[in-house]
Amino acid sequence: MSIDACVFCDIVNGSGPAHLVYSDDDVVAFLDRAPIARGHTLVVPRRHSAGLSDLDPALGTPLLSVAQRVADAMKGTEFGAHGINLALNDGRAAMQTVFHTHVHVVPRRSGDKLSFAKGFLTRRPGDLAETAAQLRELIGVQR
Amino acid sequence: MSIDACVFCDIVNGSGPAHLVYSDDDVVAFLDRAPIARGHTLVVPRRHSAGLSDLDPALGTPLLSVAQRVADAMKGTEFGAHGINLALNDGRAAMQTVFHTHVHVVPRRSGDKLSFAKGFLTRRPGDLAETAAQLRELIGVQR
Ligand SMILES: [Zn+2]
Ligand SMILES: [Zn+2]
Repeated sequence: MSIDACVFCDIVNGSGPAHLVYSDDDVVAFLDRAPIARGHTLVVPRRHSAGLSDLDPALGTPLLSVAQRVADAMKGTEFGAHGINLALNDGRAAMQTVFHTHVHVVPRRSGDKLSFAKGFLTRRPGDLAETAAQLRELIGVQR
Repeated sequence: MSIDACVFCDIVNGSGPAHLVYSDDDVVAFLDRAPIARGHTLVVPRRHSAGLSDLDPALGTPLLSVAQRVADAMKGTEFGAHGINLALNDGRAAMQTVFHTHVHVVPRRSGDKLSFAKGFLTRRPGDLAETAAQLRELIGVQR
């Protein structure tokens, strides 16, 4: 796949639609269109790479830093997550479906195993605009 | 939990048993004792942190770099992985069981969904010593 045809490059460049949660010089974060749980966010490097092997390791720190900010916003009392799963799926065999490297940030709640499993199957969008606005506000008030 | 009682700090310090795969000044990698799939490796920072929020973001790059080396070794023809799942589980609600921050590196094969689900339930150790020796060798020959 050429970079021109990458839906995440389109989002990074502002030419593709997304519910943005956070953006800086290295990293963009936006909601998964088919979330496993409400708030399910993708953190992506601006510079295109396809998977794990070709990701510049220097991006580890900016990616982790943004994943932490998103996770901390989710773990505040207002959003109410009790835990967070970070995941980077590399290759079709590992369930990667978009070939621009991305880190999933998935909020969890105590005892949510059943609704989590259900979310994994149904992946209903819910109100993405409202959820993104809430996360942007919660990230914005962090120190 | 005090740092003294942390089983991963014991491994990092060399006082606890583990099947080491890789080690440097910042990061240690060793096999999960109850693997989801053969080769399932944990990458941990030497310096203790409990979860995601208290992990020094500067460790993102060394952690990613080691996860990439382990993943690339797994994806070579000899080990034969077709994909890799990286995961960082933060909090009991997210299935974290050892409270020293760690990144799971799980090798996947095309069409392994059933054996993967089975591995998730049974988590049989298999021959950890032999698997660790193979991964150490494969990581060692990388350029
Ligand atoms: Zn791209
Ligand atoms: Zn520890």
